Amino acid sequence: MRQQRLLNPTLRDVPGDAEAASHRLMLRAGLIRQLSSGIYSYLPLGLKALQHIQTIVREEMDRAGAQEMLMPALHPAELWKASGRWDVYGPELMRLEDRNGREFALGATHEEVITTLIKDEIHSYKKLPVTLYQIQTKYRDERRPRFGLLRGREFLMKDAYSFDRSTSGLDASYQAMFDAYVNIFTRCGLQFRAVEADSGAIGGTDTHEFMALADVGEDTIVHCPSCQYAANLEKATGVITNEGTSSTGLPQAQPTKIHTPGVTSIKQLSQFLTIEPQQIIKSVAIKAEGAPVIVLIRGDLEINEIKLKQVLGVAEITMLSEAEIQALGSIAGFIGPVGLSSVKLLADTSIQGLNNAVVGANEADYHLQHVDVQRDLGELTYVDVRNVGQGESCIHCGNELAFARGIEVGHVFKLGTKYSESLGATFSDENGVSEPMIMGCYGIGVSRVLAAVIEQHQDERGIIWPNAIAPYSIHLLTVQVKDEAQMTLSEEIYQTLTSAGYSVLWDDREERPGVKFNDADLLGFPLRLTVGKKTSERIIECKERRQGEVYELNVEQLLTHCQSLFN
Amino acid sequence: MRQQRLLNPTLRDVPGDAEAASHRLMLRAGLIRQLSSGIYSYLPLGLKALQHIQTIVREEMDRAGAQEMLMPALHPAELWKASGRWDVYGPELMRLEDRNGREFALGATHEEVITTLIKDEIHSYKKLPVTLYQIQTKYRDERRPRFGLLRGREFLMKDAYSFDRSTSGLDASYQAMFDAYVNIFTRCGLQFRAVEADSGAIGGTDTHEFMALADVGEDTIVHCPSCQYAANLEKATGVITNEGTSSTGLPQAQPTKIHTPGVTSIKQLSQFLTIEPQQIIKSVAIKAEGAPVIVLIRGDLEINEIKLKQVLGVAEITMLSEAEIQALGSIAGFIGPVGLSSVKLLADTSIQGLNNAVVGANEADYHLQHVDVQRDLGELTYVDVRNVGQGESCIHCGNELAFARGIEVGHVFKLGTKYSESLGATFSDENGVSEPMIMGCYGIGVSRVLAAVIEQHQDERGIIWPNAIAPYSIHLLTVQVKDEAQMTLSEEIYQTLTSAGYSVLWDDREERPGVKFNDADLLGFPLRLTVGKKTSERIIECKERRQGEVYELNVEQLLTHCQSLFN
Repeated sequence: MRQQRLLNPTLRDVPGDAEAASHRLMLRAGLIRQLSSGIYSYLPLGLKALQHIQTIVREEMDRAGAQEMLMPALHPAELWKASGRWDVYGPELMRLEDRNGREFALGATHEEVITTLIKDEIHSYKKLPVTLYQIQTKYRDERRPRFGLLRGREFLMKDAYSFDRSTSGLDASYQAMFDAYVNIFTRCGLQFRAVEADSGAIGGTDTHEFMALADVGEDTIVHCPSCQYAANLEKATGVITNEGTSSTGLPQAQPTKIHTPGVTSIKQLSQFLTIEPQQIIKSVAIKAEGAPVIVLIRGDLEINEIKLKQVLGVAEITMLSEAEIQALGSIAGFIGPVGLSSVKLLADTSIQGLNNAVVGANEADYHLQHVDVQRDLGELTYVDVRNVGQGESCIHCGNELAFARGIEVGHVFKLGTKYSESLGATFSDENGVSEPMIMGCYGIGVSRVLAAVIEQHQDERGIIWPNAIAPYSIHLLTVQVKDEAQMTLSEEIYQTLTSAGYSVLWDDREERPGVKFNDADLLGFPLRLTVGKKTSERIIECKERRQGEVYELNVEQLLTHCQSLFN
Repeated sequence: MRQQRLLNPTLRDVPGDAEAASHRLMLRAGLIRQLSSGIYSYLPLGLKALQHIQTIVREEMDRAGAQEMLMPALHPAELWKASGRWDVYGPELMRLEDRNGREFALGATHEEVITTLIKDEIHSYKKLPVTLYQIQTKYRDERRPRFGLLRGREFLMKDAYSFDRSTSGLDASYQAMFDAYVNIFTRCGLQFRAVEADSGAIGGTDTHEFMALADVGEDTIVHCPSCQYAANLEKATGVITNEGTSSTGLPQAQPTKIHTPGVTSIKQLSQFLTIEPQQIIKSVAIKAEGAPVIVLIRGDLEINEIKLKQVLGVAEITMLSEAEIQALGSIAGFIGPVGLSSVKLLADTSIQGLNNAVVGANEADYHLQHVDVQRDLGELTYVDVRNVGQGESCIHCGNELAFARGIEVGHVFKLGTKYSESLGATFSDENGVSEPMIMGCYGIGVSRVLAAVIEQHQDERGIIWPNAIAPYSIHLLTVQVKDEAQMTLSEEIYQTLTSAGYSVLWDDREERPGVKFNDADLLGFPLRLTVGKKTSERIIECKERRQGEVYELNVEQLLTHCQSLFN
């Protein structure tokens, strides 16, 4: 392709609201343009990269035995009503009516459509298992679209669905997709972690999220640098040992009331008493489906609502009101476990072993010092209901856990029978007995992968494409397009390389060399070849975008050189 | 691919409302399934064929110098309001609101989006011409979706848009797309005609429709079997010679009133007088933007409203009311040109040379016989405002025109400046003068092409795929899957063929041979190979779906045989 003709409007400056590096670079390099909030057009170079990702996805899905199909974006409302999601999904689901007043959803995901299709087409165990996938445009009306392709409202997704007759079958289908995802993200050049995630209220069991590591990521990953353990913050667990810390090191005094006027937060309290937050036990008063519960957790840590709901076996948790706290015999801001006999106590394992802690005194403007958990709080139920904190160690190998930010690029999920039961997708086994199919679902945000790749592969000058995704492998620059010899040699190189199967963008524009070099760095194809001063000697200049150094090469060695770089 | 695992639910019977052969066959062969009226899922085999068409489209568009990009389906209403189409498009345009109450259209076509993008990104003549295309899902809420993929509400389209600085530039861009379309439809195995079409009120000039010939087609094509002339009925012109017909052969009597009580239609009149409709001149009273006009046309022919509007230079035509006809001095059912001096007469060329015609007498229950057009009607303005009729001859070569039915699979259109002016897409020329870009637009109904291919390539047993589109090239059948020798030889053949790059579907199902043979004919891949009785002799049976005859082949000759068939 000759660049003179290419629709590739590069920019020096980008709109101030482009926060993510990938967003800025995709705008600057002329890969995408915004049409409306969270809705983008792909210009030629952006689409090429997107297509390369699609090719990798297809190859690995096919290799894993999944079959490609294509479903519509317009979904009749009846299907979503049958699954119950028409009401649950909320304003993220875009809805419209056709000319006859029939309601439709714009597909945010395709469980309803595929399950209905399979229900009609597969009736016997003989046609199971089957895994189907599509690469298709999805619609989600995000409350706050941002970061360019990282959180859009119209985006490209690969979604797959497996149908099995047994849970062990589902395990195998799930593992096949898991392995395919590892291959896909590896081939895309992503640094990623497959993290354990919470299966939430959807009724599934196992679930993993594939997280591309990046500071701009909206998810926090907890991982062990020594072993393979990784989970997202909602799911991660760690081990806390309070032994030998300041909260366990002092002689055991008796609980003592201390006047703390107007001191109601952990931060205020630790400053007022000049102690570490780790020495404070936070007492959080909640209501779990009507019943009050006091959750005890170390002062520096946060309650993980998802874990708490699971531990309590409830779907909703609210905070107790001030009046409800008073009814328990306490007062907001000064709640504590000592002497609160009428209410259920739940202790996070983070308070285990504390023997010199501060708690609320259930009395306005007072706390209790020198509380020994074991001595003063009696028999406690210990549970894990916290977000893992700094300094916790790995439950598998004991080494200290690390934290990272991640972009969710993929998700594998054991759905079970939620959709097959609500939509009636059953099969007959060998004995003619009807059973619901056991399903899994598997998603990759294809357009989000593109942004994540750029997020991980860039520097201050521009994008640094991995070979497999680069819109073009080689950027051929002619320094002086009015110099006939340079153009002739460029043409020869262009023909040689394209005939050998390399994709080449030839910068034949009448621009100053500085502009061309800057654009080449911005566009970031793996190899830049410059035809310039030494044309008469048939010597060109090479620059590998990732390494950065510039070296000369005789044209006769070019093909061998490219083979060593790209094969 | 092994068929046992393939999601390919074939059917013996199809729903009664599937009228078109392609619709019936796509359902029976398990290529598509309907989700809602005019909205379909592509099952694995259907998608493969669709992807083969996409590949052909991409290759030919790229070869023609067009650049691929991808635009969203969600269009902000403002763009459609700016072009004026928000109001004009009517209920075919699907509309919705996002969570903030902002209005969107689901893209029925992308002139607004691409023109706005180009307006922002191209400002100089140096970046012109450029042609951009996408393969993308379109939405049109058809009043009456039917014929499966032939008229759907969600469908796959290739749409392209060219931007030029001059009309001669547009001519070249248009011709490049025209030629690419010829290549695309030829490679898809379609019998088609590029027909002249009417550019209508969109303000364009040249336009051609690509029509796949098929009886189920909703358009009528007029074409010359001797030369290349072809046009759709709205645009077609022919030559009528009335010389030597019954309406010109009699001696010239004077006009004579004849009593024709209650005889008001051409059919009644020709029966009443026992003459041919060709001997009658129909006088049609219309109102063109307020002004009455009497259109004279031979009795056997129909007025073409589009031609008439163009001749009169008006956008709307209505019929005159009975009162308005009386005000002209005539009466409905008996209008005639003789003595109607107060109104404009417009004569279709079909009445030229008639000298023994019957016309209305402008008096209830009376007609005039023996009217000589030249003698009795004075100076007439002759125009072509009719649909071409049976027996007309080609304006180019004089041979008799033929009629056919067609499916519109492509459309090329010179848009001019309609969108660039309304949306402000201008460029600066060498002198810094700002001009609107000159646009063309070019569409292919990709999913409709798939249906049209099947419409043309099928028999009573099933589909007969052209090689380039077939989901698989080769269908390998194992007659007895429980026979180990047959399975071993089948496996060997499968490996040999797939290694050589052929796509093979291996029917390894435990089904009766009759079922397998019927399914193979229904699925219609070009070559069927059957491993059966002569396995021990390494002899297999071949059947080319298009030819139909069955012959034997030694496995050792298989690759050579496939090369001769497919290369």
